[in-house]
Amino acid sequence: MAKTNPGRFFEDYALGQVIAHAVPRTVSGGERALYHALYPARHALFSSDAFAQGCGLPAAPLDDLIAFHTVFGKTVPDISLNAVANLGYAEGRWHRPVWPGDTLRSESEVIGLKQNSNGTSGVVWVRTRGLNQTGETVLDYVRWVMVRKRDLDAPAPVTAIPDLAKAVAADDLVVPPALSFSGYDFTLAGEPHRWGDYELGEVIDHVDGVTVEEAEHMLATRLWQNTAKVHFDATFRDDGKRLIYGGHVISLARALSFNGLANAQMIVGLNGGAHANPCFAGDTVKAWSEVLDKAETGAPGVGAIRLRLVAVKAGGQPGALKGEDGKYLPEVLLDLDYWALMPL
Amino acid sequence: MAKTNPGRFFEDYALGQVIAHAVPRTVSGGERALYHALYPARHALFSSDAFAQGCGLPAAPLDDLIAFHTVFGKTVPDISLNAVANLGYAEGRWHRPVWPGDTLRSESEVIGLKQNSNGTSGVVWVRTRGLNQTGETVLDYVRWVMVRKRDLDAPAPVTAIPDLAKAVAADDLVVPPALSFSGYDFTLAGEPHRWGDYELGEVIDHVDGVTVEEAEHMLATRLWQNTAKVHFDATFRDDGKRLIYGGHVISLARALSFNGLANAQMIVGLNGGAHANPCFAGDTVKAWSEVLDKAETGAPGVGAIRLRLVAVKAGGQPGALKGEDGKYLPEVLLDLDYWALMPL
Amino acid sequence: MAKTNPGRFFEDYALGQVIAHAVPRTVSGGERALYHALYPARHALFSSDAFAQGCGLPAAPLDDLIAFHTVFGKTVPDISLNAVANLGYAEGRWHRPVWPGDTLRSESEVIGLKQNSNGTSGVVWVRTRGLNQTGETVLDYVRWVMVRKRDLDAPAPVTAIPDLAKAVAADDLVVPPALSFSGYDFTLAGEPHRWGDYELGEVIDHVDGVTVEEAEHMLATRLWQNTAKVHFDATFRDDGKRLIYGGHVISLARALSFNGLANAQMIVGLNGGAHANPCFAGDTVKAWSEVLDKAETGAPGVGAIRLRLVAVKAGGQPGALKGEDGKYLPEVLLDLDYWALMPL
Repeated sequence: MAKTNPGRFFEDYALGQVIAHAVPRTVSGGERALYHALYPARHALFSSDAFAQGCGLPAAPLDDLIAFHTVFGKTVPDISLNAVANLGYAEGRWHRPVWPGDTLRSESEVIGLKQNSNGTSGVVWVRTRGLNQTGETVLDYVRWVMVRKRDLDAPAPVTAIPDLAKAVAADDLVVPPALSFSGYDFTLAGEPHRWGDYELGEVIDHVDGVTVEEAEHMLATRLWQNTAKVHFDATFRDDGKRLIYGGHVISLARALSFNGLANAQMIVGLNGGAHANPCFAGDTVKAWSEVLDKAETGAPGVGAIRLRLVAVKAGGQPGALKGEDGKYLPEVLLDLDYWALMPL
Repeated sequence: MAKTNPGRFFEDYALGQVIAHAVPRTVSGGERALYHALYPARHALFSSDAFAQGCGLPAAPLDDLIAFHTVFGKTVPDISLNAVANLGYAEGRWHRPVWPGDTLRSESEVIGLKQNSNGTSGVVWVRTRGLNQTGETVLDYVRWVMVRKRDLDAPAPVTAIPDLAKAVAADDLVVPPALSFSGYDFTLAGEPHRWGDYELGEVIDHVDGVTVEEAEHMLATRLWQNTAKVHFDATFRDDGKRLIYGGHVISLARALSFNGLANAQMIVGLNGGAHANPCFAGDTVKAWSEVLDKAETGAPGVGAIRLRLVAVKAGGQPGALKGEDGKYLPEVLLDLDYWALMPL
Repeated sequence: MAKTNPGRFFEDYALGQVIAHAVPRTVSGGERALYHALYPARHALFSSDAFAQGCGLPAAPLDDLIAFHTVFGKTVPDISLNAVANLGYAEGRWHRPVWPGDTLRSESEVIGLKQNSNGTSGVVWVRTRGLNQTGETVLDYVRWVMVRKRDLDAPAPVTAIPDLAKAVAADDLVVPPALSFSGYDFTLAGEPHRWGDYELGEVIDHVDGVTVEEAEHMLATRLWQNTAKVHFDATFRDDGKRLIYGGHVISLARALSFNGLANAQMIVGLNGGAHANPCFAGDTVKAWSEVLDKAETGAPGVGAIRLRLVAVKAGGQPGALKGEDGKYLPEVLLDLDYWALMPL
């Protein structure tokens, strides 16, 4: 009997199927320190217990993207080991902070299936939930991937395409109950710009750049227990390149966005996202953001801001996303649409 | 007076001598996070407090090889700074888990000496013990190295070759008192294969590969406070290459072996090991295992499995270890023989 | 309104101005583990809770240079983003240890200004203080940098050059109240050499070398939340090289100095320092020290030793610092003058 995990193929998924993903993980200050070494992360709420306490929280939570990557990484062996493409995200919400000492696990429900017309692959939609040690949801999101078929003769499933929201409605965003930005310290946070200072359509060039190294993206990707061969094995692809985990680019861009969005403290919603072009070691990643929407939240001093976060490599320009053909420009690495909480 | 440590030479060792190694170290969740970033480590017992609690432990211990590397690293300045070759391991046992907050130190007793016939070097056998802050043994093992003489005229010691077991007897393995696999969660552990599913002689190809970077092996080797120049200084060897610490390859191979041996949770015995060929940055490391033996332990639901773990670089094939000349194939990096605990 | 931080220019500073730096940071065992992975740090007082307790402390503090880098890193966006050169340090003192769980922030007072005769830049002197969560000073030091002017027509400020001590007087060094080296364990510390064994003028070659990688210096520099573009963006300089943060070289040299100065346990004073030449990835860094002064402290068994710590790259020789022209030799990377505490 073969003992290794070959991953699931398209015909292995069934609508309504719930997959419990393996290897729960307890996170600590070690994961935070590594996150802050791997990315230029500086949002004060996640850096300082004292700052977080000033915002009503008992201590600094782990960075919201640590939660995302940890939950996501667990799904890889079951969802994307045989994926041809990572197609999209939708309806992502952060439900509660993750604290040092929490243990995270993940499960995914298959909510959509569509075999491709060529009969060799299909699209699988899953709603993934991250749970903590008491079974509370810390995060959930929908993701869809194109997966190969193992047996080309396997019958096509009934097509079921989920009806996904274009964006999480502001009313559905979860603000941690105790959170208050009434006494927010803009000086310690690093920038004076508040929610009211951002205008719809405004584009912010985050200026800074990071040239990516192989060791860094592999350290990060392993830390999230993401096992996809393509990230680690230089002999796996014909061109001898290791493809950088898309989440590494997300964290890099989000951290770079501090410069101009230092007060976009907590990510609470993931509306959509595309890994537009592959990223490789040696690329210098920069980022820009566009303000897509704004909403109030009811929590004291807390506004929500919807942002498009774009990561680019050399040649990318702030505001330049797609060509006349409607396709992403070749310099664009990431186009992410998310909600963050910001002081009013 | 010269203040730096020149290391010990062959004539500096005496039978029965006990060497207390310097620089005790307190380990924390930081070391665990780094271990999980440096290696694709996913064994659930070491990843999740909740999973470990389900196995009767108070929390997840630090990975068994963190204990090994920490204990081993301390011996380097006294044992192997002038070593020509790291010849073997035997009779290794893990006596108790290491927890975050524990402080580890090491001591070694010289248990064998044999000058080489050329008179320029000799073999030193030591039994090394790792101790925690209360003086309890956490780990012990025998290791032997070939060490240069400083003074070629120094008299040869009486030859004393220790009588070492070919393998730790199953009855001598130490199972943590509270450990129980009666309620083991195979889903969260990642694989359904239990002790009874593995057959003697079975060979498992672990499939995945990792291309090694200079920054990674140096981070790891420093973390264990291993100071051998050859790992860090590219100007030390004539070929300008940094030799990768053999323990880095051990941890890499062990972590890769998750894919097929996810339930070989705890390493409890080290029967032997050879660093067959040097590993350098740029090598893509893969691994395979062979089932050498099995035994019951008396602990609830806990079996022991003896495994040969082989790390190879490009060209290595599962099951291919030595050539017709009885020597290791040039692609073989590591041949390790160990006992692990696995659910029955 | 531009939202990103352009940094301050020379005309933005005023004598007496106090700048509160952003992004406080809570440090943990994660930062320590990373520090010990990034540098071959082995001073026992910072490695082992048990050893530190034997010296009267409640536990092992975080390495003294973790405190320095964390405090320093916060000043970069306000002080040195537009700096042309990092000119010097003086009057640095460590006031109290930093423990896991502490939250550090920084503030700087402008204590000197002098416009350069060319009118395009000027020198700014600041006294930077690092504070913990209860507002206690953990560290302070003077630093001066040359900063560009944005507006060349801006009037020159009144020249004010602070009167800085050539070295911190031994009587002004702060020894942690409980510290005692009366029961110091030289074996566990790693070397037998005590305060009385070091002679003024003695030069110690620390022997070991480390070849530096891009990933390592970037991980380190990000961990301290130092955002200077020149360290991360390979496209920023015309030569495509990333300049290594000078503090990375300080920590590397200090860690290498363990070999010969294992008992120079705590850094308590920073008398001066020059980053003599730039360091780039690929350089192999070695270090040597010179004993500049010695003093007693009054604390039980605790002496103070003033050391010159020099980091060099290939070609550097112990004791060789400057050429006949009085300028640093091209192989010299760092010339640091500090006080450390050592057992009598």
